[in-house]
Amino acid sequence: MIVTFEELQAFLAEHFPQGARYGTLQGLGDGWAEMKLEVDDEHLRPGGTVSGPAMMALADVAVYAALLGKIGLVPLAVTSNLNINFLRKPVAHSPIRAKANMLRIGRTSAVGEVYIHSEGLEEPVAHATSIYAIPAAR
Amino acid sequence: MIVTFEELQAFLAEHFPQGARYGTLQGLGDGWAEMKLEVDDEHLRPGGTVSGPAMMALADVAVYAALLGKIGLVPLAVTSNLNINFLRKPVAHSPIRAKANMLRIGRTSAVGEVYIHSEGLEEPVAHATSIYAIPAAR
Amino acid sequence: MIVTFEELQAFLAEHFPQGARYGTLQGLGDGWAEMKLEVDDEHLRPGGTVSGPAMMALADVAVYAALLGKIGLVPLAVTSNLNINFLRKPVAHSPIRAKANMLRIGRTSAVGEVYIHSEGLEEPVAHATSIYAIPAAR
Amino acid sequence: MIVTFEELQAFLAEHFPQGARYGTLQGLGDGWAEMKLEVDDEHLRPGGTVSGPAMMALADVAVYAALLGKIGLVPLAVTSNLNINFLRKPVAHSPIRAKANMLRIGRTSAVGEVYIHSEGLEEPVAHATSIYAIPAAR
Repeated sequence: MIVTFEELQAFLAEHFPQGARYGTLQGLGDGWAEMKLEVDDEHLRPGGTVSGPAMMALADVAVYAALLGKIGLVPLAVTSNLNINFLRKPVAHSPIRAKANMLRIGRTSAVGEVYIHSEGLEEPVAHATSIYAIPAAR
Repeated sequence: MIVTFEELQAFLAEHFPQGARYGTLQGLGDGWAEMKLEVDDEHLRPGGTVSGPAMMALADVAVYAALLGKIGLVPLAVTSNLNINFLRKPVAHSPIRAKANMLRIGRTSAVGEVYIHSEGLEEPVAHATSIYAIPAAR
Repeated sequence: MIVTFEELQAFLAEHFPQGARYGTLQGLGDGWAEMKLEVDDEHLRPGGTVSGPAMMALADVAVYAALLGKIGLVPLAVTSNLNINFLRKPVAHSPIRAKANMLRIGRTSAVGEVYIHSEGLEEPVAHATSIYAIPAAR
Repeated sequence: MIVTFEELQAFLAEHFPQGARYGTLQGLGDGWAEMKLEVDDEHLRPGGTVSGPAMMALADVAVYAALLGKIGLVPLAVTSNLNINFLRKPVAHSPIRAKANMLRIGRTSAVGEVYIHSEGLEEPVAHATSIYAIPAAR
């Protein structure tokens, strides 16, 4: 790991001023990161459950964090693919947590996997995989 | 088509009060819907481009709209899978448009496809497919 | 298009001697290719329908063909992601056809989309998207 | 688990007589299954590596096995979606193994995840997720 928790936290705050809406960094390790989203009304959808887009955003940012922890603070790494399966209905007003784990980091692309949990449920509410494109000049 | 443009527009406004952030309905036909997002600062990401989550949310809602136009106003239809490929960098402050088209509508699930365009670019900036689960009791 | 139908056909026959089991080239144009699979018993599964793997293989090869038609005969282009939605049950002993269309061809990766049809059915039986990694040295 | 290893093995042999080409059952537990493919020339592709379709087929069957181990021998459970990321080049003539794990088993659908390993490599060569549709009448 070549980036510290504090460095990544500061980087996310600077580059994503609106990003707290997507979630906040909770943990960072070698090839993994954990993000947490405090669910409020803007993240809900009909049926009183956490919206799909709120979970997709959290998954996307969690892989970004796990990746940057390994390759350094490369703002222009961009998602090229995301695939998400929604597994269970989250608890409506409980926080959700995304734990991302890198499966591969290559020269021009990287693949990560994410489990999303809703506080109060043991089994995951969603699972995603995501591919990031890494810019050549870094 | 069993739902009109006006009915769906009213339904989305009622059930997704925060939904204008995801996009607004522009067109509705037999098995398709078009949504538009006016991109502002909250939808941007490092590099001055439209964020992945903004496009994922628009794609998700566009398939939801295309589906409800065919099966009626079923608020509890929920996304079970979404897969998105990001193809090109959108123009930073141009609106983006999602055109969703249903590929299959079954009894318990439906599959749709979406192209996302950035105004000013001819080729699509993203393409997604999405699966919706349709609740049994309707 | 920088490769002809005959050149691609000869290339596939040479590099995939077992490839007729995956399908044969039917058409090639600017950014698209069409493959056909004559379904026999080895492609069926319980329920007397065409197996998922037979359709996945056909989709994968069809995007490969559409890509090589544009970038030249690069054998080492490899699939990095494939996502497929199965939409309807194919007719058991009818041929299936895959029509692939490139959505983006970049320097190090490319994205294609495929519709699979079963002869005798108007609507598609499957839809896939696929990402290819293009080797640097070509 | 309501199906034994021997019952599932016999079921696969009966319903997929050609299925040894896709892989053979190695292990079965509560919500998981392991399949192995002895790679021979028909599974290779240009570059002397295991073909994508061979890995997709193995992933698909491994989730099928893990699912049937939990819900019973339901031949008509069919794949509705498969998403696969290819991570590393497998060793050309080494066997590959797929370990599938169910993430959710619902009334009408189920989601599983698979890691594929190539013997001789520690890290996975592919990762897939797959959705199965479960027929109503069982």
